[in-house]
Amino acid sequence: MAGMIESKLTELGLTLPALAAPIANYVGFVRTSDLLFVSGQLCLGADGKLVAKGKLGAEVSIEDGQKAARACAVNLLAQIKAAVGDLDRVVRVVRLGGFISSAPSFLDGPKVMNGASDLMVTVFGDKGRHARTTIGVAVLPLDAAVEVEGLFEVA
Amino acid sequence: MAGMIESKLTELGLTLPALAAPIANYVGFVRTSDLLFVSGQLCLGADGKLVAKGKLGAEVSIEDGQKAARACAVNLLAQIKAAVGDLDRVVRVVRLGGFISSAPSFLDGPKVMNGASDLMVTVFGDKGRHARTTIGVAVLPLDAAVEVEGLFEVA
Amino acid sequence: MAGMIESKLTELGLTLPALAAPIANYVGFVRTSDLLFVSGQLCLGADGKLVAKGKLGAEVSIEDGQKAARACAVNLLAQIKAAVGDLDRVVRVVRLGGFISSAPSFLDGPKVMNGASDLMVTVFGDKGRHARTTIGVAVLPLDAAVEVEGLFEVA
Repeated sequence: MAGMIESKLTELGLTLPALAAPIANYVGFVRTSDLLFVSGQLCLGADGKLVAKGKLGAEVSIEDGQKAARACAVNLLAQIKAAVGDLDRVVRVVRLGGFISSAPSFLDGPKVMNGASDLMVTVFGDKGRHARTTIGVAVLPLDAAVEVEGLFEVA
Repeated sequence: MAGMIESKLTELGLTLPALAAPIANYVGFVRTSDLLFVSGQLCLGADGKLVAKGKLGAEVSIEDGQKAARACAVNLLAQIKAAVGDLDRVVRVVRLGGFISSAPSFLDGPKVMNGASDLMVTVFGDKGRHARTTIGVAVLPLDAAVEVEGLFEVA
Repeated sequence: MAGMIESKLTELGLTLPALAAPIANYVGFVRTSDLLFVSGQLCLGADGKLVAKGKLGAEVSIEDGQKAARACAVNLLAQIKAAVGDLDRVVRVVRLGGFISSAPSFLDGPKVMNGASDLMVTVFGDKGRHARTTIGVAVLPLDAAVEVEGLFEVA
């Protein structure tokens, strides 16, 4: 039986992607006590391809960047499910770190990052409201437009 | 009655700024157990304007960057006060993350970040000595010269 | 008597470097409860010189970047030892944050960061498998090619 949060995902038409096998000596998440640290997630879609590739302020539009940030957030959800089995066990989204691949003149990182933040609040309600840091970085792995890491309190 | 730390701020001639209303689906801080995660704070002054705008190694001097980092630290203090009501409840400044908007040739990020670190030690004494990571980033929101996030142990 | 992990380091021919004296108002680590937050470590070798200087995708090769990341990891180990006295007290490597000084076109940050991740797993085994975030940054202090910060659960 699906939990409440996963029913919400179904309502939203969201399917959690299969997790990619780890490609190096690190893992998707580590839990210590009630804190779940999730590795930086690239903006890979359900088809395993980048939702947006390149830099904001250059070949990627704000709208596409927002879709990319949302895809990162979906991948965070998939990691949480793998870690604790049921998204209803999320007590609080504590912190998101947003990394926006940016041309040096691109100032709208926060707008892009809202694609991830908005999804968290849509899915978890007030428990989804989080601390956040957004920065514009020189480049991301695979030329991804956005990467997001997360910290969650879980029961 | 003001606490000891706030009396110290008064001695230093520092006034905590009013908190800006959240402009997106995130919040200024999240507390989980005794850990307080504070969102990345831009170098906004008491007047709501950026203390320094642009990049270190280009249009922003080290001195102005230090003032900017100090402003970020003041904004962290304001978030702590909003979170726990009294700065005396800070048990330890655990970690600061410093993001310096940098031309690719600018190597003095740590000097700039000292503007934030020094304020923490001035205000909190030994409890203010923290772990720190400083990096030079491509660009920051609003073209801010400096952004600082913080983690605090609170009682 | 050396602990098991330090015997492992000896087998690997690894010597932990002396810790540099803090050069500013921050410290190499802060422990709060069972969590040890270690400051960002630059790729300084045992001789106190940078293992690799400059940017990946420009004057630094992937191989040299990997050596640099490994040096950062060795410096993290030295900080842990200073913090808790014996590396056997590491319960889990929770998270590494990898910062790769990158030309805007360099896409192989994760390969570089493996130099740090692989060392953690070599030294700690399964306890060394960690959550990880890797980003390409504009520039690092001293023109270091790599910087790595770490979070550890300790007993």
